[in-house]
Amino acid sequence: MELAQFIQIARGAQPAELLLTNAQIVDLYNLDVVRGQIAIADGRIAGTAPDGASSYRATEVVDLQGQYVTPGLIDGHVHIESSMVSVPEFSRAVVPRGVTTVITDPHEIANVLGMTGIRYMLEVAKWNPLSVFVMAPSCVPAGPYESAGARLSAYDLESLMHDKWVVGLAEMMDYPGVLAGNPEALAKIEAAVNRPLDGHAPGLKGTDLNAYAAAGIGSDHESTTRDEALDRIRRGMIVMIREATPARNLRDLLPLVTVKNARRFMFVTDDRNPIHLLDDGSVDGMVRQAIALGLDPLLALQLASLNAAEYFRLFDRGAVTPGKRADLIVFKDLSAPRATHVYRGGRLVARNGELLPYHRPAESPTLPVSLSVPRASLRFAVAAQGRRLRVIEIIPNQIITKSVVADARIQDGHAVADPGHDLLKIALIERHTGSGRVGLGFVRGFGLRFGALASTVAHDAHNIIVVGADDESMRSAVEVILDMKGGLVAVAGREVVKLPLPIAGLMSDQPITTVAEQLRALLQMAHRMGSTLEDPFMTLSFLSLSVIPALKITDRGLLDVTKFELTPLFVD
Amino acid sequence: MELAQFIQIARGAQPAELLLTNAQIVDLYNLDVVRGQIAIADGRIAGTAPDGASSYRATEVVDLQGQYVTPGLIDGHVHIESSMVSVPEFSRAVVPRGVTTVITDPHEIANVLGMTGIRYMLEVAKWNPLSVFVMAPSCVPAGPYESAGARLSAYDLESLMHDKWVVGLAEMMDYPGVLAGNPEALAKIEAAVNRPLDGHAPGLKGTDLNAYAAAGIGSDHESTTRDEALDRIRRGMIVMIREATPARNLRDLLPLVTVKNARRFMFVTDDRNPIHLLDDGSVDGMVRQAIALGLDPLLALQLASLNAAEYFRLFDRGAVTPGKRADLIVFKDLSAPRATHVYRGGRLVARNGELLPYHRPAESPTLPVSLSVPRASLRFAVAAQGRRLRVIEIIPNQIITKSVVADARIQDGHAVADPGHDLLKIALIERHTGSGRVGLGFVRGFGLRFGALASTVAHDAHNIIVVGADDESMRSAVEVILDMKGGLVAVAGREVVKLPLPIAGLMSDQPITTVAEQLRALLQMAHRMGSTLEDPFMTLSFLSLSVIPALKITDRGLLDVTKFELTPLFVD
Repeated sequence: MELAQFIQIARGAQPAELLLTNAQIVDLYNLDVVRGQIAIADGRIAGTAPDGASSYRATEVVDLQGQYVTPGLIDGHVHIESSMVSVPEFSRAVVPRGVTTVITDPHEIANVLGMTGIRYMLEVAKWNPLSVFVMAPSCVPAGPYESAGARLSAYDLESLMHDKWVVGLAEMMDYPGVLAGNPEALAKIEAAVNRPLDGHAPGLKGTDLNAYAAAGIGSDHESTTRDEALDRIRRGMIVMIREATPARNLRDLLPLVTVKNARRFMFVTDDRNPIHLLDDGSVDGMVRQAIALGLDPLLALQLASLNAAEYFRLFDRGAVTPGKRADLIVFKDLSAPRATHVYRGGRLVARNGELLPYHRPAESPTLPVSLSVPRASLRFAVAAQGRRLRVIEIIPNQIITKSVVADARIQDGHAVADPGHDLLKIALIERHTGSGRVGLGFVRGFGLRFGALASTVAHDAHNIIVVGADDESMRSAVEVILDMKGGLVAVAGREVVKLPLPIAGLMSDQPITTVAEQLRALLQMAHRMGSTLEDPFMTLSFLSLSVIPALKITDRGLLDVTKFELTPLFVD
Repeated sequence: MELAQFIQIARGAQPAELLLTNAQIVDLYNLDVVRGQIAIADGRIAGTAPDGASSYRATEVVDLQGQYVTPGLIDGHVHIESSMVSVPEFSRAVVPRGVTTVITDPHEIANVLGMTGIRYMLEVAKWNPLSVFVMAPSCVPAGPYESAGARLSAYDLESLMHDKWVVGLAEMMDYPGVLAGNPEALAKIEAAVNRPLDGHAPGLKGTDLNAYAAAGIGSDHESTTRDEALDRIRRGMIVMIREATPARNLRDLLPLVTVKNARRFMFVTDDRNPIHLLDDGSVDGMVRQAIALGLDPLLALQLASLNAAEYFRLFDRGAVTPGKRADLIVFKDLSAPRATHVYRGGRLVARNGELLPYHRPAESPTLPVSLSVPRASLRFAVAAQGRRLRVIEIIPNQIITKSVVADARIQDGHAVADPGHDLLKIALIERHTGSGRVGLGFVRGFGLRFGALASTVAHDAHNIIVVGADDESMRSAVEVILDMKGGLVAVAGREVVKLPLPIAGLMSDQPITTVAEQLRALLQMAHRMGSTLEDPFMTLSFLSLSVIPALKITDRGLLDVTKFELTPLFVD
């Protein structure tokens, strides 16, 4: 629409396209609620006015009967891949709940498919009723012991910055590299100069935190205590309050938020699995949780939209004011907002929790299969070279592990799993290049009494990870994974429960409700197999993350992360 | 400095250049004060740390002995020309008071010299210890009856947007043009798309205000009442609280500012004459005034720096946090901040109210003389064509006028000034093109009993305006102006008091203290001549502003602004 026409509509001299009357408009600039009507045209808000004076006319008039209207919510940091569904299915889950914009870091798929994976996410995001902005992944691979499917250089990231949907640099997890002045880390920062640069710096403090901020890092979502969060906002960083499936920080951080400093916080989900997403929602759930914990509802809504819009410099959204995008949520109860209607760009896209039909091209972009494993390489036998094993010990609900020593169970000259003593075998199988590399080790804490669990979701390189009570179950589990082109599987004898993830081995092509059902069935199966962990697949997926202490499994064998070197399986 | 080195300094691994210890650091993000030290290198803040732990070392260490440190102040909207001094002299006045950044709209000089004038201001601003950002003047000339020296098209403005010091579009005074959809007005807005667009919309409200905001206008400094200001912040606009010499709004608007909405306000001076600037300072004076009126000092400092930095997207300043420019003020008393030390880019630039010496090239840019008036055209006789005159009546301390009718005093077939009845003659002499055009009229309210006052400061086109008790004094006054290449003058018989403004007829080349003295002498002279106005030159300068009601003088004669048409001098 020409600006001249939009101005005439805003003046009330020409009819708007849509008029929402009898609304309680949430004013996030003043932390106030104003009764009135909202005129919309060209996907944007033309103006607001008191009702009754009938300032505006429109082709379509909707009486909101006193319901509240607030800007569409914004999730400031989310790995869509963690929901295990495609972007359209992710949209189906979050848009009806009022999330109309997400800032995603596609670093899971980037570890598998590099720029091809990022471009795929940008392309597939295009037709959904959700604005998907991308932060360019800064750490692919995550470290030198990660056999990822791709490597993103500063050059790659610089080229991404020219894409209109790419807004900045995603979580700079390599804070040791930044602090050490690693040239490639700094080149990545410089590639995103004058844009938002997200941080990821668990535990960083003092002058090291100064240096991280001085390098240009503007946010952090790894604060777990109020002191850490205060340290960050005092340094001018934005604190992203995170409530992810494996890391829940809202309850601990919320007491720090006051009307004085609220503009320095936003809400993010980071990683939510499909069950969590369906049960608790996205940032809409965080808004309700924050209000239940005592935060002023208007502040909660400010954190969940305006603050994120301003930090990411998305000046076209985040408020119900003239000229902003008409991304709007309608809801009844200010003490627990639940969207009855969601408008995006002035179009009703969801009603009472259901996404309305929308146009999508019949063809969707395709990806190469990213599984290349010679079946002959699937050998898990460990020749006994001693009687005492170095073992990964799981700490429940944490992604750090302990390194312990245990007696090996020897059979026919081989060290084998010993489920009676909760000692299982674990393997990491390189899947990107067909190298046939298989790293072997032992793990304690899963509690499986028989069978095996395997997955292509294995941070951050997403090779195939498998844990089992015997080599044959492990081999069967990996073969199921190869047959279904990636996914999660539990194998116990002839019983097989699986969740296929054919999109890069990370995402399903099925509806999110199906995926959640499949995941529930898998977890039940794992628990029947003896696992004492709440989510053994989640735990498994982090045992390969080679930048988190203390002992991890790589495709080259056990890695002592405290020394950052490979370490033998047998202790002598 | 390489980023790698800056990071090592921020970590404390290499010495900083400057360390300010024993400070009370104002944290504008949290509205808090934190004791500690500030390490500075490369003109930027490397980090802050508690004292005592001696986290930082530096080449130079300054013990602040418990004084406060806050970011350098930012004047969000100022016409430097109104101070009647050159940019270096303006810097000398404001920098020692703690103003380290100004956003200027050079629309006075642009009306005289167009792009040449703007480029001159950019050039001459370069060497001073003050960051001068420019908003491109949107309304040159101000209206169709302004005989300005230049015309700035949307094309000109678009080219200005590529200058690194130009940050957006200056006050869009032509709000009727925007509302009417005038293509040139909209083209100017579109030339500055995705940048800050300043507004100027006195009295605008309702759906017209919606339309103005919907067009992209993001601020307004013309609110005079709390209701007007609230109307604007509810529409997502920033309210610039103005305290100018001719328009003082702080006291009226301040009660609207709360901790909830404070981020939507900033302080601006707009127009301050040299006496006002020397007596009350710049935005530093507004900070003290606001605190005296009851505003939390930390909020006052936030309005005066961080909020302006964020609105203008100057993300490199506005807070004492790692990576920001080391533009800092040191002061003792939080209840009335007065800078004892001012640092700009980490360099001490002022101490105890005095600017320290700084490097400036010997050559400064020059401008063409902008006075072209044929002396033969200086004829002020008005042939009597009736007995009743249409007269401009002044309303003291306002820039609007009334249109009244008065009896003419006729001598020798001519209507002449009648100082006994406070009826003076006024003339507007076109000075840019040598056209010889002289517009004549009568004015009531000056109170001069004899002599004449003349000036080349005559909004917005800055032609020569002269008011007098007799034609001969008027002619003498204008001749003094021509001889001194522009300025202000009072003539009474052989007594002449003058303030030369050789830079475009708007600015002096003398020190601000001299200019203030000259202006004081002029005002005393005008009062001795009988003027009852506080500042008759200020009043005079607005009698030519042809876009403000009701009756104004142009070089084509009297303009009825309510009808927007020229109107005869005699009423019949």
